[in-house]
Amino acid sequence: MVDIATRVWNHKWKIDPVVRSLIDTDFYKLLMCQSVFRNKPDTHVTFSLINRAKHVPLAKLIDEGELREQLDHIRSLSLSRGESTWMRGNTFYGKRQMFTPAFMDWFEQLRLPPYHLERVGDQYELTFEGSWPEVMLWEIPALAVLMELRGRAVLHDMGRFELQVLYARAMTRIWEKVEALRGLPGLRVADFGTRRRHGFLWQDWCVQAMYEGLGEAFVGTSNCLIAKNRDLEAIGTNAHELPMVYAALAEDDDALARAPYDVLSDWHEEHSGNLRIILPDTYGTEGFLKRAPDWLAGWTGIRIDSGDPATAAEIAIRWWQDRGEDPKKKLIIFSDGLDVDKIRELHAQFTGRVRVSFGWGTMLTNDFRGLTEDDALAPFSLVCKAVAANGRPTVKLSDNPRKAMGPEDEVARYKRVFGVGEQEEMEVVV
Amino acid sequence: MVDIATRVWNHKWKIDPVVRSLIDTDFYKLLMCQSVFRNKPDTHVTFSLINRAKHVPLAKLIDEGELREQLDHIRSLSLSRGESTWMRGNTFYGKRQMFTPAFMDWFEQLRLPPYHLERVGDQYELTFEGSWPEVMLWEIPALAVLMELRGRAVLHDMGRFELQVLYARAMTRIWEKVEALRGLPGLRVADFGTRRRHGFLWQDWCVQAMYEGLGEAFVGTSNCLIAKNRDLEAIGTNAHELPMVYAALAEDDDALARAPYDVLSDWHEEHSGNLRIILPDTYGTEGFLKRAPDWLAGWTGIRIDSGDPATAAEIAIRWWQDRGEDPKKKLIIFSDGLDVDKIRELHAQFTGRVRVSFGWGTMLTNDFRGLTEDDALAPFSLVCKAVAANGRPTVKLSDNPRKAMGPEDEVARYKRVFGVGEQEEMEVVV
Repeated sequence: MVDIATRVWNHKWKIDPVVRSLIDTDFYKLLMCQSVFRNKPDTHVTFSLINRAKHVPLAKLIDEGELREQLDHIRSLSLSRGESTWMRGNTFYGKRQMFTPAFMDWFEQLRLPPYHLERVGDQYELTFEGSWPEVMLWEIPALAVLMELRGRAVLHDMGRFELQVLYARAMTRIWEKVEALRGLPGLRVADFGTRRRHGFLWQDWCVQAMYEGLGEAFVGTSNCLIAKNRDLEAIGTNAHELPMVYAALAEDDDALARAPYDVLSDWHEEHSGNLRIILPDTYGTEGFLKRAPDWLAGWTGIRIDSGDPATAAEIAIRWWQDRGEDPKKKLIIFSDGLDVDKIRELHAQFTGRVRVSFGWGTMLTNDFRGLTEDDALAPFSLVCKAVAANGRPTVKLSDNPRKAMGPEDEVARYKRVFGVGEQEEMEVVV
Repeated sequence: MVDIATRVWNHKWKIDPVVRSLIDTDFYKLLMCQSVFRNKPDTHVTFSLINRAKHVPLAKLIDEGELREQLDHIRSLSLSRGESTWMRGNTFYGKRQMFTPAFMDWFEQLRLPPYHLERVGDQYELTFEGSWPEVMLWEIPALAVLMELRGRAVLHDMGRFELQVLYARAMTRIWEKVEALRGLPGLRVADFGTRRRHGFLWQDWCVQAMYEGLGEAFVGTSNCLIAKNRDLEAIGTNAHELPMVYAALAEDDDALARAPYDVLSDWHEEHSGNLRIILPDTYGTEGFLKRAPDWLAGWTGIRIDSGDPATAAEIAIRWWQDRGEDPKKKLIIFSDGLDVDKIRELHAQFTGRVRVSFGWGTMLTNDFRGLTEDDALAPFSLVCKAVAANGRPTVKLSDNPRKAMGPEDEVARYKRVFGVGEQEEMEVVV
């Protein structure tokens, strides 16, 4: 077992790069990448870092040289033989050869494309431009680098015992969370915390704690490297990125209205079973479900990633009932802003009515709130999004206007096309 | 830094013997040993283990074979060259050559004498018989072995993460104690926790935490091996053992009444300054001080090890005043049943009135209370005492009748000789 505190204290932390593998990323990125590689390989996309927490002055906290060093290190990575074997030979969601030989041939030769980094005031502008299947792979490592370098900056000045006690406290906290979830009947929870993790070693520790503490209730991790190393299930399906880029590429309003369903139509062809999970909130959950074709109601489940989760789940249950589906056979995956209390609450409300699963992110892998002076290690809301496709801006509406993004006029157009009216604002913690 | 949880989990713990050196003992044992070696080398003494906590069935918890293995290992130890150099060359309490060449020559060739171990019901009878300067060195290692083997038995069935979280919680607890003491003006506190420590590595961790957290307020450790390894002050003076054996050797009541002062008279010849610390409670503090010769009032201080500590300190202050001494120049060392609250309370009450110092034992090095099921790691009251000298039983009265020991008729005789009346009973936690 790694003694994290000592490793941090050694100041030789460069032996621990923030991102140590091309598969130190979320599983759904690889699934989406393959889909994009097959369906939209020539799309030119721009990803951009967006720090929603303006009070965190990233450029003051993180040395630009160190940031470039970590990003350059990521560009030097390529798929190792063992990683390739794992992707080619492993069974994902019960399916062999999830990744096609054509995709693997391409992925094996891939290096991540260049990045553009500029300091603007106290923030960094960090963008990635290029062919969609290549640049999309920057999202998770870029977020992990920023989040971890900010943490390292804080840890740098701490003493040896301060560090050991810091991690002792954080470990105790995670273990108490695990104990609070232990014994919930039928609980299914996965680690979704790669992007905003405190650090790789820490995420790895949290995953092992979940595994030891929850047994079969812990269903896997979204992190492919950890899944591979620890012989766990790699978990994930798809994300907003797909409908956002498909929508941006739409030539007119009719095509725009169809775009979110076109995405899932492509996905329908490629995947079955537990990978057929609807992510309905990109342009408003309610309207999306109302206008959805019937074949979508036949999908396995839905992932709820913004707005009030219980409300969205009730909407999904009613929608399935309206379409003649049995909600008890459907899966609802909660993945937004979860922590123990919310998991317990949703588990109590929905167990028995639908199949329930939880994708637990930041509050699993980065709950250092209150453990340092000025709360300097508290996680914050940092994202890296596709902001343009073939020269056109992307838009996200979400079920929470604070998570919306895109140019004002385009947001208005999308709201009109998707029939999105007033929305309830909710605080975005992470 | 040692990852204690992993070390415990490895089940190769035999690479970590409980006692790993002849100087893995309390400093005062070595000082007393030298005094005995000089003044009473031919006394035949019996030490015996006494488990005051009958509810802890040591013989059920600890395998006899493992116990013998650890005790045999201790018998195989001899002073290493580095240890000898440290004892011969180091400055203790500002004095060079604290240990005489004659004593060191003897100590260098010493191996601990045989032990007698027998299971009686759920307890072990463990006794050490032989020449006083030899058998007295069994006390601390014997206690440490019993305490740690009992802990290992509990830890043996715990999982890897359970262990890591156990130690994380214990570390957090110690650090919170350190933080609660930090900043107390003029605080002086030492580690006195060898005998009932959770384990050697754990004591070593606690000492380092004290050093990093308290700086100069942490004045040293009673453990010679840790003092040597960590370049800290070795702390300690003398114990009840000396007056108990001197008293047992007394031929009549007059000699008995003189015995506690004879001890200190021998000590007076050998030591000066901060080593001239009175331990007055063996046969009742109040009477001891009342009958004490004036030269004792000139000693540097007093150690309070039973009864209500504030009451005893007030008695000492009045005694110094009565003898024309200035209490502000005197040192009071509190060493009985201390934890953070009691330290803060006594510090507040006596700082400014006398010089105050704390010898913090079990609650520093073995506070695992409440951290396991059934509280199976909670420390308990285990001692190892000189019970006979030259065939005559020893007696201890103490300022707390629950700490008293000896045959009933002898206790009655001692009470009469030392004029001890009613005493207040106080719970003995550890």
